[in-house]
Amino acid sequence: MVDIATRVYDHKWKIDPIVRSLIDDDFYKLLMCQSVFRNSPDTQVTFSLINRSKSVRLADLIDEGELREQLDHIRGLSLSRGESTWLRGNTFYGKRQMFRPDFMEFLEGLRLPPYHLEKHDGQYELTFEGRWPEVMLWEIPALAVIMELRSRAVLNDMGRFELQVLYARAMTRLWEKIERLRALGPDLRIADFGTRRRHSFLWQDWCVQAMIEGLGPRFSGTSNCLIAMRRDIEAIGTNAHELPMVFAALAKNDTELRQAPYRVLQDWHEEHEGNLRIILPDTYGTKGFLDGAPDWLAGWTGIRIDSGDPAKGAEIAIQWWKDRGEDPREKLVIFSDGLDVDEIERLFRQFNGRVKVSFGWGTLLTNDFRGLAGKGLDPISLVCKAVSANGQPTVKLSDNPEKAMGPPDQIERYKRVFGVGQQERIAVVV
Amino acid sequence: MVDIATRVYDHKWKIDPIVRSLIDDDFYKLLMCQSVFRNSPDTQVTFSLINRSKSVRLADLIDEGELREQLDHIRGLSLSRGESTWLRGNTFYGKRQMFRPDFMEFLEGLRLPPYHLEKHDGQYELTFEGRWPEVMLWEIPALAVIMELRSRAVLNDMGRFELQVLYARAMTRLWEKIERLRALGPDLRIADFGTRRRHSFLWQDWCVQAMIEGLGPRFSGTSNCLIAMRRDIEAIGTNAHELPMVFAALAKNDTELRQAPYRVLQDWHEEHEGNLRIILPDTYGTKGFLDGAPDWLAGWTGIRIDSGDPAKGAEIAIQWWKDRGEDPREKLVIFSDGLDVDEIERLFRQFNGRVKVSFGWGTLLTNDFRGLAGKGLDPISLVCKAVSANGQPTVKLSDNPEKAMGPPDQIERYKRVFGVGQQERIAVVV
Repeated sequence: MVDIATRVYDHKWKIDPIVRSLIDDDFYKLLMCQSVFRNSPDTQVTFSLINRSKSVRLADLIDEGELREQLDHIRGLSLSRGESTWLRGNTFYGKRQMFRPDFMEFLEGLRLPPYHLEKHDGQYELTFEGRWPEVMLWEIPALAVIMELRSRAVLNDMGRFELQVLYARAMTRLWEKIERLRALGPDLRIADFGTRRRHSFLWQDWCVQAMIEGLGPRFSGTSNCLIAMRRDIEAIGTNAHELPMVFAALAKNDTELRQAPYRVLQDWHEEHEGNLRIILPDTYGTKGFLDGAPDWLAGWTGIRIDSGDPAKGAEIAIQWWKDRGEDPREKLVIFSDGLDVDEIERLFRQFNGRVKVSFGWGTLLTNDFRGLAGKGLDPISLVCKAVSANGQPTVKLSDNPEKAMGPPDQIERYKRVFGVGQQERIAVVV
Repeated sequence: MVDIATRVYDHKWKIDPIVRSLIDDDFYKLLMCQSVFRNSPDTQVTFSLINRSKSVRLADLIDEGELREQLDHIRGLSLSRGESTWLRGNTFYGKRQMFRPDFMEFLEGLRLPPYHLEKHDGQYELTFEGRWPEVMLWEIPALAVIMELRSRAVLNDMGRFELQVLYARAMTRLWEKIERLRALGPDLRIADFGTRRRHSFLWQDWCVQAMIEGLGPRFSGTSNCLIAMRRDIEAIGTNAHELPMVFAALAKNDTELRQAPYRVLQDWHEEHEGNLRIILPDTYGTKGFLDGAPDWLAGWTGIRIDSGDPAKGAEIAIQWWKDRGEDPREKLVIFSDGLDVDEIERLFRQFNGRVKVSFGWGTLLTNDFRGLAGKGLDPISLVCKAVSANGQPTVKLSDNPEKAMGPPDQIERYKRVFGVGQQERIAVVV
């Protein structure tokens, strides 16, 4: 029986919206937003889209009108009552009322601020300016929209069965990865971190459900709040480079700059405990960060390795804990940089037992269509970052110079201040 | 929006019927049925299920109650008005009114006769007895029911995403075959002959649609009348071993026996022309059949190779046409025995241009789940054959002793009468 009402309703949509909810966003954005809302609500920031895969000319692939429609649709979104209830009432990381009433009121009244869009040399220049706690929530939806519009542009030329076989191949590929992960045994812990560069919303949702069935308790949850709510699983995530980058940009001199990354974590320390106390040490070089870290940081639960050689990063962390009298076996190491199954297997075998190991699996979980449509659907290295704060440029160094960003003179200054020497250059896939 | 009526309606079904239409059947069964209805309507025959894959214990896998429900459901089917209209009004093989009014009246009033079902040694003994034109229409639905119940038994233990990935893998596999077939160029002609041993009805329908999109005009149609009607494509098929087998069983002596295969084709000659004049020469050995054939048979359009080494069979046919003064390039060779893409490629390259080449692709089109659920879904060699006519046993020799059937003494008699010597033994996959 054809449901006539459904067909009529479906045809009324002017567009097929990609982001349909304000909480179709990473959990850590909300956590950080709450922190920013309390500590720096009036900081003015600019976020900017950066396509590190220059050879993919996004402005040639994606129609500007369609992109504007999608972004305008997001500006029309507000928190629904059910979403608000979930954020207020759910237990996150074992804690009730993670989000404070004043923050929830702010979120309930929020509409995302305007965007600026221009085309230059085959790329989109997409920027967001305004108050930090509002602008920061553009990052993930903006990325997801660009990624999915690019997928749609490529899929648009395919036949019906060609499409079905495309997804059949992607499903088969993911399932084979899941079977390999299952073979790693019951100690594995892995979460979906793939919202920002997903192939599409529906595909991410499929991937999460496949992980639920295929991995059972080894699958610890998803970074995506909407999917976590709908699939009744854990929302996962802690903090990101954005915090130290903005704090560093606001530093008045080199002394303040040197302390900025620790100041961020001081705030975090007061706000959160347990598994939310995860150090992200690589913003200005992991080695220097740990060497200069105050003792209370060694008491934190774990560390997230997001750039550089991940095994080296984990060894540095283990040695650091030992030097500070901590037992690494009680500590959590979260790997989250461009992972795929080969590397997950290698890292798990190397570190399981020596530390607690966990994985945040991103783009190659939710967007591995490599080779399935020529190179048309291969994932690209797209980011959306805070590029300035109160008029000062931000800088990121990370443990891989390929991931560094900021004005060259400022990069030099930061390297000097944080004592970063020669770094190993590692190709960035996603 | 949930369509409540659909949900309620779906839940009212006591069973999920496998065969839902009397024309969910091979086209050639209807053509042959019309011929039998005119020439031998009162012949009493017995059809019997034969599982040549003894190691698959069907009676252990398939619940007897479920099998009876499915068979009973088929006995309740009758030709719908739309199906009747299609059979009466459609053009088959370029001919209008292929089915005569008296035959259509018979078909419109038809219900399939009773069945007899017993279990022996892990296998089902399923037989059908009665008037030939009625009993013969059990063959394909009986096979399809057993095949699909066996699929369901295996699928029953699988999870939701495991199932989806199973079909994803099967789709990918078929699509890769279709891509290889497309690469053979515009001369290829291939049809779906996979009704009888299909994985399931819905899967066959998917395969046909994938062939339509993937092969375009290279895909010449399907043997399945219901799918041909619904997908608006050609219904394909001519005649089968059943006709000479029953005619031979009815022969009163060796002289009549020797002539029986030609008498069948004499009837067919009077009834059909053009692309329906396809010789199936292997029932009692291709070589002897062609050597003893009357000259008018050499004028027929083509030959179907259904057992033995297919390349040898085609070479014999080509030589035979040359000996009879015919131009093989004007003749059609249809390969239909247990094909898969490797063999299709080989045969197409060997014979395209020398003759017109066509393929009837069966089980490995509609049921290639080999290895996707262990061996649980590997296709089996299941047939349903006329085993006696008016109390006399039937015999089939074919060009491969693995496919021979009948009482041993009768097989010896037939071999003597038809001058069949040593034959090459070829393993039967499907």
